[in-house]
Amino acid sequence: MSNQPVLIAGEWRESQAGKTFQSENPSTKEFLPEIYPVSSWDDCDDALEAASEAFEQMRELSGTQIAEFLETFANEIESRAEDLVKQANLETALPVSPRLADVELPRTTGQLRQAAAAARSSNWTQPVIDSANNIRSCFGAIGPVCVFGPNNFPFAFGSASGGDFAAAIAAGNPVIAKANSSHPGTTKIFAECAANAAAKTGMPASIVQLIYRTGHDVGERLVSDNRIGATGYTGSRAAGLTLKKAADAAGKPIYLELSSVNPVVFLPAVLEEKAEELATEFTESCLMGTGQFCTNPGMVILLKSDTAETFITSVAKQFSKAGVGTLLSGGVAKSLHESHAVLTESGAEVCAGTGEGSGVGYCAANTLLRISGSQFIANPEIMQTEAFGNSSLIVVANDLGDAAAVLTALEGNLTGCLYTASNGDDDGAYNILAPILRQKVGRLLNDKMPTGVAVSPAMNHGGPYPATGHPGFTAVGIPGSLLRFAMLQCYDNVRQNRLPEILCDNYAGQAQRLIDGVWT
Amino acid sequence: MSNQPVLIAGEWRESQAGKTFQSENPSTKEFLPEIYPVSSWDDCDDALEAASEAFEQMRELSGTQIAEFLETFANEIESRAEDLVKQANLETALPVSPRLADVELPRTTGQLRQAAAAARSSNWTQPVIDSANNIRSCFGAIGPVCVFGPNNFPFAFGSASGGDFAAAIAAGNPVIAKANSSHPGTTKIFAECAANAAAKTGMPASIVQLIYRTGHDVGERLVSDNRIGATGYTGSRAAGLTLKKAADAAGKPIYLELSSVNPVVFLPAVLEEKAEELATEFTESCLMGTGQFCTNPGMVILLKSDTAETFITSVAKQFSKAGVGTLLSGGVAKSLHESHAVLTESGAEVCAGTGEGSGVGYCAANTLLRISGSQFIANPEIMQTEAFGNSSLIVVANDLGDAAAVLTALEGNLTGCLYTASNGDDDGAYNILAPILRQKVGRLLNDKMPTGVAVSPAMNHGGPYPATGHPGFTAVGIPGSLLRFAMLQCYDNVRQNRLPEILCDNYAGQAQRLIDGVWT
Repeated sequence: MSNQPVLIAGEWRESQAGKTFQSENPSTKEFLPEIYPVSSWDDCDDALEAASEAFEQMRELSGTQIAEFLETFANEIESRAEDLVKQANLETALPVSPRLADVELPRTTGQLRQAAAAARSSNWTQPVIDSANNIRSCFGAIGPVCVFGPNNFPFAFGSASGGDFAAAIAAGNPVIAKANSSHPGTTKIFAECAANAAAKTGMPASIVQLIYRTGHDVGERLVSDNRIGATGYTGSRAAGLTLKKAADAAGKPIYLELSSVNPVVFLPAVLEEKAEELATEFTESCLMGTGQFCTNPGMVILLKSDTAETFITSVAKQFSKAGVGTLLSGGVAKSLHESHAVLTESGAEVCAGTGEGSGVGYCAANTLLRISGSQFIANPEIMQTEAFGNSSLIVVANDLGDAAAVLTALEGNLTGCLYTASNGDDDGAYNILAPILRQKVGRLLNDKMPTGVAVSPAMNHGGPYPATGHPGFTAVGIPGSLLRFAMLQCYDNVRQNRLPEILCDNYAGQAQRLIDGVWT
Repeated sequence: MSNQPVLIAGEWRESQAGKTFQSENPSTKEFLPEIYPVSSWDDCDDALEAASEAFEQMRELSGTQIAEFLETFANEIESRAEDLVKQANLETALPVSPRLADVELPRTTGQLRQAAAAARSSNWTQPVIDSANNIRSCFGAIGPVCVFGPNNFPFAFGSASGGDFAAAIAAGNPVIAKANSSHPGTTKIFAECAANAAAKTGMPASIVQLIYRTGHDVGERLVSDNRIGATGYTGSRAAGLTLKKAADAAGKPIYLELSSVNPVVFLPAVLEEKAEELATEFTESCLMGTGQFCTNPGMVILLKSDTAETFITSVAKQFSKAGVGTLLSGGVAKSLHESHAVLTESGAEVCAGTGEGSGVGYCAANTLLRISGSQFIANPEIMQTEAFGNSSLIVVANDLGDAAAVLTALEGNLTGCLYTASNGDDDGAYNILAPILRQKVGRLLNDKMPTGVAVSPAMNHGGPYPATGHPGFTAVGIPGSLLRFAMLQCYDNVRQNRLPEILCDNYAGQAQRLIDGVWT
């Protein structure tokens, strides 16, 4: 019998669960005391039914009312900041400060407030009016959204608090949050905050619901259920692909963030300019947060030279010398060690690390591997095995053609980066490599590490498969991220009093509208 | 040995085919003389390789250059109008005039010119600039696009001429056109026009390639190939779902238009107002083009009443009296008869037609079937069997609750329509039914038949699955339709001289840009 209730249809109630689980403290490798349910289909079915009703009620709400909920939710989170930070630290080993308290929490409430502003302005709906034909269209809510959050950002990507959550709600959809099983306690506090905010702002009680875990078959049934509008998933590639297959077969949109090695190319002249400085910049980016960022630079591409060797030697030294952080969970540690084994068994040479390392709790030594360009090209699938954590693979290409072939063999990634000399000496190489890399990544960087993901309207945190499931959408950046949880809705000859306000002739709001070809 | 060449890598050459096929004249049921190849994988592989090269070259082209190609292509089409109309009439039995010569051909060239205007303005790329962070993003070309066109619009949805083609090219992608096997000769003329236009405007020779048919396995391999950017498919649900499964598994976007019954609800008071007039309006819409429109009103929902019976009797009379058109092919006729059999065997009552009818060539009697709301609700999947052609199914609901249950059980559709009285007497019912229907369709109509699909920026020719594969995209309406063949591309800290022109600080063009939150 679990002692932690699920939140379904506005009530904290006992789950109709068969099994239970506990989360672990990754620093001590000990189970935390709370017992959580593994929800059966009955929980999901009830949640779907309640979400459908909530969705009908949400259709009557204005953007301003939804904005008030999101803002109140942000305030509630701030009032529980201490609990959240404490619980997340227990469950993830992410440092209290600055990471959780001073970086991720403000980012999370900031996102919610930006989403509120988007809901209030309705600019995200992209209204288009053709007066002559009396045809009007805009984006509108898609229906109940299921959010599966990742382990590495318990706040900013959390299933009941993060970017997908904020986008889905701002677009007018209720959310069924599936907590990440590594931090169910943290997610529960968020759901408590959300339930309070919903009550205070007169939202439907089922605007947010919470389950902690399901079996694979139940998860597949959930994302493909007829009552679901869409799903947002961030997490492991294997689990994500299982959900994708089920959702695809049912024709239900699913937005996935799956895996990304985030290639970084250092061209020869910039290495000549400042190999040591770049080695330090790279090391800091790669080991930050024990490397557990979606945009961690997990692959470096160099052209064979003495300076390249200098760079590698320097990074290896710094990796060996740097402290070893605690990983998010036993699962992350296991995966990381397995990835290292796959890479080394396939011929990667160890420059630094592998093995357990000398950190606290679950950990792995800061690991730097290397292969040649030809090794990569001969075995590109294996060589792109994601080693999620404090680890990177250096690919030393023989020449520019070899480097181009490596980039051509890349799968889709969230980011790709090219460092070039300030004096222009790398520009020829840039012009050859950049067009190849451009089509492989959502975000192309120059002379900058990819780890920071600014919450900016110009951000694209997305990219071609398998980085995500569709290269036309971003998970970070408002209002763009809202469009994942929307459908295009056209009104043809519909009477004025039946139109959404934003499509009416007498609309008095501030949103930008495309009327007869002119933005107004 | 086939006598018709494929167009690959800029050359009209003999296909590496194993098999051949001929198209049929649906009016005479006789084979046309030309022999076409069923392309093997070798043809596709060559086409993919050539398309990849063409894509690299197209990256260097400006929107204006692409616009010139599209406009020159439109001119070429006009210079071959007589051939096109003659060939399409032979292959599809669609009337020369007004349909092919005066409606569909001008629509096709109009679409191409609208797409040219979109390419020239670049407005479709939605540029967003965050100056403080130096992050910039816009939509950009996705890569080689494969287009599978349908049988019912040989020009306006043709794989080498229609909406998908125009959108893919305007967004900067080369196209591999897979002709519809019912009108390979028509598609070949378009490809000839395109090749001429490409030569005249200095485009890469492989901007357009043409194959006529492939086996299922080859088609699946084509849409999931690593070199493909995306696929546009309009056609039968069964073939589309096979391609979707393959593309989904490879993470390749595929935009499908699969099937739609386009429900039309006539509420009680509007029927009281003008039952006879509506019966005529409906009949004309349903039988137009022998009912072979994606937006044909294939399902009518009425509330039980004497007036409803008057409406049905009147439609049945008009269906029986109206001339019977020739269907597009033997396959269409076979499917239509099969659908009628499925519906009648499941309890649908025949009000008019079924059987061969008295038309020329492949045909079916104008068919009107009826069932009750409870029959629909008991068996919604079967009762939504699409009967593509001159046919419709009337659902007589017992009351409003029954009608609501019917709408709730609907699959996704391209369109949904509610007719209501001008005096407001249907407004209560409208308010109950419209929100349900809204979520099921891409385009919601009032008091208007769905068959016309205006090429308007405000149009949505799309909708939830299985009408299409994703409810966020439209196949008709420029610039919206271009976004299907684009990926979101972010530039983070990228130097000014390396940015696409539209993202540069010194951009001198006219496109609307969102700079630091302000549309400029």
